[in-house]
Amino acid sequence: MKAIGVEQGSAEPTLLDVPAPTPDDGEALLRTHRVGIDGTDFEVLEGTHGGFPAGDDYQILGHEAVCMVEDPNGTQLDRGQFVVPTVRRPPAESNEYFDRGEPDMAPPEDCLERGIDGAHGFMAEYVTSPAEYLIPIPNELADVGVLIEPMSNTAKALELAFSSRGVLEWEPERVLVLGNGPLGLLTLAMVQPTVEHAYCLGRRDRPDPTIDIIEELGATYVDSRETSVSEIPDVYEPVDLVYEATGYARHAYDTIDALGPGGVGVLLGLPNDWTFEIDGGALHRELVLKNKALLGSVNSNLRHFESARESITTLPEWFLDRIMTDVFPPERAEEAFAGGDDRIKTVIEFEAL
Amino acid sequence: MKAIGVEQGSAEPTLLDVPAPTPDDGEALLRTHRVGIDGTDFEVLEGTHGGFPAGDDYQILGHEAVCMVEDPNGTQLDRGQFVVPTVRRPPAESNEYFDRGEPDMAPPEDCLERGIDGAHGFMAEYVTSPAEYLIPIPNELADVGVLIEPMSNTAKALELAFSSRGVLEWEPERVLVLGNGPLGLLTLAMVQPTVEHAYCLGRRDRPDPTIDIIEELGATYVDSRETSVSEIPDVYEPVDLVYEATGYARHAYDTIDALGPGGVGVLLGLPNDWTFEIDGGALHRELVLKNKALLGSVNSNLRHFESARESITTLPEWFLDRIMTDVFPPERAEEAFAGGDDRIKTVIEFEAL
Repeated sequence: MKAIGVEQGSAEPTLLDVPAPTPDDGEALLRTHRVGIDGTDFEVLEGTHGGFPAGDDYQILGHEAVCMVEDPNGTQLDRGQFVVPTVRRPPAESNEYFDRGEPDMAPPEDCLERGIDGAHGFMAEYVTSPAEYLIPIPNELADVGVLIEPMSNTAKALELAFSSRGVLEWEPERVLVLGNGPLGLLTLAMVQPTVEHAYCLGRRDRPDPTIDIIEELGATYVDSRETSVSEIPDVYEPVDLVYEATGYARHAYDTIDALGPGGVGVLLGLPNDWTFEIDGGALHRELVLKNKALLGSVNSNLRHFESARESITTLPEWFLDRIMTDVFPPERAEEAFAGGDDRIKTVIEFEAL
Repeated sequence: MKAIGVEQGSAEPTLLDVPAPTPDDGEALLRTHRVGIDGTDFEVLEGTHGGFPAGDDYQILGHEAVCMVEDPNGTQLDRGQFVVPTVRRPPAESNEYFDRGEPDMAPPEDCLERGIDGAHGFMAEYVTSPAEYLIPIPNELADVGVLIEPMSNTAKALELAFSSRGVLEWEPERVLVLGNGPLGLLTLAMVQPTVEHAYCLGRRDRPDPTIDIIEELGATYVDSRETSVSEIPDVYEPVDLVYEATGYARHAYDTIDALGPGGVGVLLGLPNDWTFEIDGGALHRELVLKNKALLGSVNSNLRHFESARESITTLPEWFLDRIMTDVFPPERAEEAFAGGDDRIKTVIEFEAL
């Protein structure tokens, strides 16, 4: 079957011809409809994140997928049903995180990640998965369902943020999203209707499709080249919630400055090592005196995928249309991975509806 | 009446002769039994924290108090009842934080702090307070009740920590307390019975009464001169909860290294400005990939004082006896504030039982 992956020694996405998988007991055989491309795929290509499945000299990419059940194989699923697979799978021996339904809380060494770390991804004509890691979605979400995986990460991060203020009266009124990639824009669209004002930070010149979307959502675009994250309280106002999706390490610390009293910063980016100076005393004091919180958040579990499946139905149709900018067949993988400023979410379509 | 305070231009505690306060409507007149001395008092003396009450050229110190109701003045309190006052009071105009019962969440500009910032403290023969900021305590706690205020800060910090993991299965099994001052030791005694193992970090040579207490509680003393906070996972084990009570700014960042997956660091120290280098990329990534959290926490509200009033009854008697090392009359204030390595909690006693 056709698959898009990366071969040992290469950093390029390649159209591979690999054997189709056969489902084990409890696994369904799925036919892949669409798979989204995101920043993590590029880290996998570059070899800075994750690793190949044990014993294989290639890694099939892709972790944002919509598939159709080809063979339920004795599971509760129905043939022809659309599903979105979760990403994390237990290592050879299961562990406490999977046993208690919190694979998203496992440290990297205690889980595999499909398409990322130690397990093949979903960019292939056929994939298999235990039924317990698949959430059914209605047919009408099949084309945009690749957004459910990234949105599930936001669902988890927001759940952590609200939980961290659970004993307080806390409703974030001003929100700052760091990053205007697909994850930033999806998060902005998810939170915007519930807050008084939202800001979204990027470093792009106008005219730009992401700036247009930010403003059409009613949010304010902040150009990080003009206003740093630390300056946001002075130039605009302090915010109650910062959602960091840039992976720019300074943003984690500047977030402390951007927050108002009782504010929460959720961090999702994965920067490389980078040593720099901070006023560690002032930031520490600021965290304490104003009861601020910084929460790291990675991945998501079944509950967050289910929450994202709900949330996606609340997003405006124009927004989803404009987020889903490019669709390529697997044969044009190189072009699909080439990127470009007019692209927001690029997907590979294996089988049209 | 006698009071211990600091006069404009001085950094020394002084025995003052000031007019006794008269209670306003809704305020009770209290006779002070005991007031504890803590690190914040020294910051007030040095002028690095808080400030004098508006219009006064002196500040009465003290925010850890036990008083007896001298005149209920129409409030629900009973004459002769012992009470512990909370610390924060609304500024001239009240605000949202006080209105919703969360004065502890107010930023510094939105509250006064008795004995610290803009309001006189409790180191005086008589004090007044609105009844709503007083929690009654049983007579048998009168002598150790000065510990309820510091313990209330831990009650709040732990509440925030547990809340931040509220959607998860999280019971901290390994806990690291940074700091072996009274607050660190009290926290250690509060958490020790509920965890598998506790560590307490200090920088003292043996023999030392705080190290003896740490070990008698069944915890492990970690000498920060031998093992840094970042090295604790390698030398001992990663911990689920770090409680920072040192005010040493590097500890806030080293805490990220000390935590295991899903771990929480609560920060309570108030360092001065201090610029230093960190590997901001590695720490950011570590927060994210292992779902770690850093929570600042300052002060406490009525609920936390009530919780501390419960907790103190669970602490072993030997522990309370050995924490309460020194009692001085107000006339010996200079000696009381002199400190010393054999001292743990020093109190001023205005009126013996």
